[in-house]
Amino acid sequence: MRMRDGRARVIIEGVKPEIDGGRFSIKRTVGEKVVVEADVFGDSHDALSCVVLYRKEEEPQWKESPMDFLINDRWRGEFMVTEVGLYRYTVQAWIDHFRSWRDGLSKKVKAEQDVSVDILAGAVLVDEASDRASGSDKDSLREGAKSLRSAKKPSEMISLALDDELFHLMARYPDREFATTYDKELTVVVDREKARFSTWYEMFPRSCAAEQGHHGTFRDCEGRLPYIAGMGFDVLYFPPIHPIGQTHRKGKNNTPVAGPDDPGSPWAIGSAEGGHKDIHPQLGTLDDFRRLISKAGECGIEIAIDLAFQCTPDHPYVKEHPEWFRLRPDGTVQYAENPPKKYEDIYPLNFETDGWQELWEELKEVVLFWIGQGVRIFRVDNPHTKPFGFWEWLITEVKKDCPEVIFLAEAFTRPKVMYELAKSGFSQSYTYFAWRNTKWELAEYFTELTQTAVQECFRPSLWPNTPDILTEYLQMGGRPAFMARLVLAATLGASYGIYGPAFELCESRPKEFGSEEYLDSEKYEIRYWDVTREDSLKDFIGRVNHIRRENTALHRDWSLRFHPVDNDQLICFSKHTEDFSNVILVMVNLDPHHAHAGWVELPLERLGLDRNQSYQVHDLLSDARYLWYGPRGYVEIDPQVVPAHIFRVRRRIRTERDFDYFM
Amino acid sequence: MRMRDGRARVIIEGVKPEIDGGRFSIKRTVGEKVVVEADVFGDSHDALSCVVLYRKEEEPQWKESPMDFLINDRWRGEFMVTEVGLYRYTVQAWIDHFRSWRDGLSKKVKAEQDVSVDILAGAVLVDEASDRASGSDKDSLREGAKSLRSAKKPSEMISLALDDELFHLMARYPDREFATTYDKELTVVVDREKARFSTWYEMFPRSCAAEQGHHGTFRDCEGRLPYIAGMGFDVLYFPPIHPIGQTHRKGKNNTPVAGPDDPGSPWAIGSAEGGHKDIHPQLGTLDDFRRLISKAGECGIEIAIDLAFQCTPDHPYVKEHPEWFRLRPDGTVQYAENPPKKYEDIYPLNFETDGWQELWEELKEVVLFWIGQGVRIFRVDNPHTKPFGFWEWLITEVKKDCPEVIFLAEAFTRPKVMYELAKSGFSQSYTYFAWRNTKWELAEYFTELTQTAVQECFRPSLWPNTPDILTEYLQMGGRPAFMARLVLAATLGASYGIYGPAFELCESRPKEFGSEEYLDSEKYEIRYWDVTREDSLKDFIGRVNHIRRENTALHRDWSLRFHPVDNDQLICFSKHTEDFSNVILVMVNLDPHHAHAGWVELPLERLGLDRNQSYQVHDLLSDARYLWYGPRGYVEIDPQVVPAHIFRVRRRIRTERDFDYFM
Repeated sequence: MRMRDGRARVIIEGVKPEIDGGRFSIKRTVGEKVVVEADVFGDSHDALSCVVLYRKEEEPQWKESPMDFLINDRWRGEFMVTEVGLYRYTVQAWIDHFRSWRDGLSKKVKAEQDVSVDILAGAVLVDEASDRASGSDKDSLREGAKSLRSAKKPSEMISLALDDELFHLMARYPDREFATTYDKELTVVVDREKARFSTWYEMFPRSCAAEQGHHGTFRDCEGRLPYIAGMGFDVLYFPPIHPIGQTHRKGKNNTPVAGPDDPGSPWAIGSAEGGHKDIHPQLGTLDDFRRLISKAGECGIEIAIDLAFQCTPDHPYVKEHPEWFRLRPDGTVQYAENPPKKYEDIYPLNFETDGWQELWEELKEVVLFWIGQGVRIFRVDNPHTKPFGFWEWLITEVKKDCPEVIFLAEAFTRPKVMYELAKSGFSQSYTYFAWRNTKWELAEYFTELTQTAVQECFRPSLWPNTPDILTEYLQMGGRPAFMARLVLAATLGASYGIYGPAFELCESRPKEFGSEEYLDSEKYEIRYWDVTREDSLKDFIGRVNHIRRENTALHRDWSLRFHPVDNDQLICFSKHTEDFSNVILVMVNLDPHHAHAGWVELPLERLGLDRNQSYQVHDLLSDARYLWYGPRGYVEIDPQVVPAHIFRVRRRIRTERDFDYFM
Repeated sequence: MRMRDGRARVIIEGVKPEIDGGRFSIKRTVGEKVVVEADVFGDSHDALSCVVLYRKEEEPQWKESPMDFLINDRWRGEFMVTEVGLYRYTVQAWIDHFRSWRDGLSKKVKAEQDVSVDILAGAVLVDEASDRASGSDKDSLREGAKSLRSAKKPSEMISLALDDELFHLMARYPDREFATTYDKELTVVVDREKARFSTWYEMFPRSCAAEQGHHGTFRDCEGRLPYIAGMGFDVLYFPPIHPIGQTHRKGKNNTPVAGPDDPGSPWAIGSAEGGHKDIHPQLGTLDDFRRLISKAGECGIEIAIDLAFQCTPDHPYVKEHPEWFRLRPDGTVQYAENPPKKYEDIYPLNFETDGWQELWEELKEVVLFWIGQGVRIFRVDNPHTKPFGFWEWLITEVKKDCPEVIFLAEAFTRPKVMYELAKSGFSQSYTYFAWRNTKWELAEYFTELTQTAVQECFRPSLWPNTPDILTEYLQMGGRPAFMARLVLAATLGASYGIYGPAFELCESRPKEFGSEEYLDSEKYEIRYWDVTREDSLKDFIGRVNHIRRENTALHRDWSLRFHPVDNDQLICFSKHTEDFSNVILVMVNLDPHHAHAGWVELPLERLGLDRNQSYQVHDLLSDARYLWYGPRGYVEIDPQVVPAHIFRVRRRIRTERDFDYFM
């Protein structure tokens, strides 16, 4: 066995956060902290010192911040990430002989032992530190050692030796010759804030025409921007905007044969008019698209596009790169299938092709092309049907030059696969939210997402509906169900989205009983939506999104805690800022049909409240205010009015004028 | 970012057992299994195959055993370790195109789709497999492909394609070109059985003289062997047997100044007569020692010695290697201290010396020297005051040539430090058992040791007493306390030990009230013990050790489970063999003063019992038998009789003669 330097006696283990032994990066956004913990200990009983080392990838020098001893050999420190890009961090620790010496000396002094030889041993340590120091510190240390040696009276020796100034000076020049550095450098991908806090609106641009019967265009979308911004959304996501294939095109309601006027599914990408770098001509031109991005920006909205890496039989790649597809023994190209289902309009890319490197490069070119047009957010269709290694490479490559790009993974599959995509680099991920309806399901799932190691890489995006998902809850629950699910999505998740105008217009007709597909789905036909309808939820959505924006507690997920209510139909949870300046308490009636009442039990201290003070809960939806005393609060919610409260919890503030104020 | 081969699409993660990302070895003994689990998944929905690869360190070729899918992308496999030494293991998985194809084909057949092109695709896979095969398998596969291609009728095609024989043949020649191998090779240290199952007796050889007033010798120890073997011990451990220093020698009861006849502490190693490779002359010669080892072997006992790496001022190292000690500024050698306490009779070795490599080598020589004399078990004194890296190196080096050596770590310190020593290679470790007295404490602690990741490297050794530890429980509880603690140690731990004859003679006088030191401790004086005393526990100990030997459930710790009893003074736990052929149920009354009764609740299925059958609990201590029905059993224990039951649980066996038998 190799002898490492046996004098490095400190062990560093159990470093957190760390994903799979450092194989993957954790994620943060600009301005957030990375709190680092580690087990740090040595043999014997010497005192230790311990620091977090960190730096931006491209900086040559480590910065460091001290770690404090917690308990049971656990230490904790932290650092702030201030710029987008990649950071590195690790832990370093060493035996602190000066501190050990000082601690021992204090005890001997207390026991009234002779310490004259100890004082001389201390002087040696101070001299050694002066060799490591420079400038005035060097002089001070040299002087300090001299004073220790020349002191005559024991009391003088002791006061010099235990001097605080000397202690702090020595702490600046520790002997790190035998320091241990943790054997891994861990990494943090730092994104811009929108990777963590974003409000999405999905819309089919072709359904945006001002008049029924027309194919909507990017110009039409411009007219819809104030409406979307008015509801408080900041990301507008379009299904694929590329030319749509003709071969095996699906008709209305996914019928196998399209009629002559059927527009086909936007996810059937590729035709004689082009592929993944082209625009479907009926939507407009590339110029129109760029103009839309610019107009959206003026409304505070970013355009997100869809990366759906699959081709119709008409896609140019099929001719240009037949090697990227799998051939059947009869010479035809292998279409997508999930036996016994066949998707003959789609040719999947064969990632086991010998030409995989060219394929990867080309798909990167697709992303770079749209970045070139001004897109910075990509929603990725079915990423779990392409290799994880491909995504890790693609996202890393793209972010190298463009670290502000955000990728949302649309994978509805097994948990480990979903988490693996997050580890591979996706900035946000769809979740099982749509199918988590009961209090127990919601609490279990969101506790897993926000309170376990999953939180370090997986940023949940909550969608009550999508063009593929009209849940039974929405089908059955009517308007109160839509409102309840909106409040849940918007407050459980710092990032959430809806598919509109279907959502705000409470579209709830399924293709058939037992199906989650919409009847007359926009995936296969152009729909006309009257967004001015009286019964639209647009104002309610606007109010909820306004509350989200104003309350920073809702901009993050990690403070989420569920609180017991003595009624299974009422769910209660809170989020708060680290300093408790903003505390939000949400209560939702999960039963869209009946009014429910119950008592909630709050952990007052964990919400920054004083157990002996009353506090106000201010419903930001209705503007009603209630005064609560102690940890139990009573709530009654009638879903026919509003199925939820979003309370801001306000502590009582005393002033010199002896009025009561709440902040 | 580097492009690895993008066609290796399978992910392998979360491999268990694995300590600190493979940094340390797990431990097993010869004949045990290593059960390996991993998260294994690919993108898309292809079928996977997965194997554990394993080999002995020195073998060039991996062996493999299949892994089975459990649930949630988790797979499990296992392999057996059959020889002492180091084994390696890892996991390999690949996308199994043939199995995917076969699964898809079955579904298509069920849906009555045309599969003629699919059959041809399958023929290609079979042909490819034949290229990988050899001998008759090669021919069979080639033939199989041909038959598939030439089959005319659909029914014929299908039955050929789904043929089981073809499936098994194909499974032998999978396409692993793009297989993923887990990126770490993990290691197992395989010890002989005694590392896991051992019964220790600690004794001061100098107290073994046949007559009071004499210094015991190794020859005297020979006479004591039948007594020790009679109690069922298989390891006899001696405190240090080396020359004892004169300078600052401690007197009786640890007084600072020794009288002229005081023998000193055996842990004060080194005098003019030699150091760590020498024998204290009053004990005998090296020849005597070797003879004792041989005599002990005849009694089924191994001799373990103490590695206490510290020196008195008189140790030869102090003159020969002054650089291995720390000097004080006044030119004297730094003695051990824990301010304000001073241990002037001990010079610790300075592991931060520039000569650390020579020091390490010399300490290794000490171990090799005693291995040369026939010692194979070392109890290591205070290993936590020497660097972890030193132990890792030492133990690895020693086991390279002598893999049967066992090291027991005597560290009573913080849990992470104790576990780190186990990770560093110690075969067994002392525990906090001596101070775990209540039911809750015992259950919590032994659940942590046997049911968490700790179990993979930390093998507990349970000691109710040691020369340093006379617990308050033993001081206060009298003979029932000794009996209860013996049963607990002997059944909770596959390895345990006692310090005798103090233990079997129920020596319970502390040095002073509140101290755990013995009065007139053998550490500082020679004691004469009358092992023939009527009230000795030797027969009880013999019975308990006999039960241990006969019941293989007690040879391992991992099956340990605690069961609820409705009386806090009664503790109940079980151990069983994997096949339930041996099930042991232990009940102990923790209160040495009062009789207690209570109901225990047993998880019958987890003990291999049929809920609808009565079963016998046979007390192996008293030979009493009880018939129990259902999961609740009633027990009454009077500590003045025997404070424990060690039940063998016997299932009812029906025979053709319709008598009831229990096995």
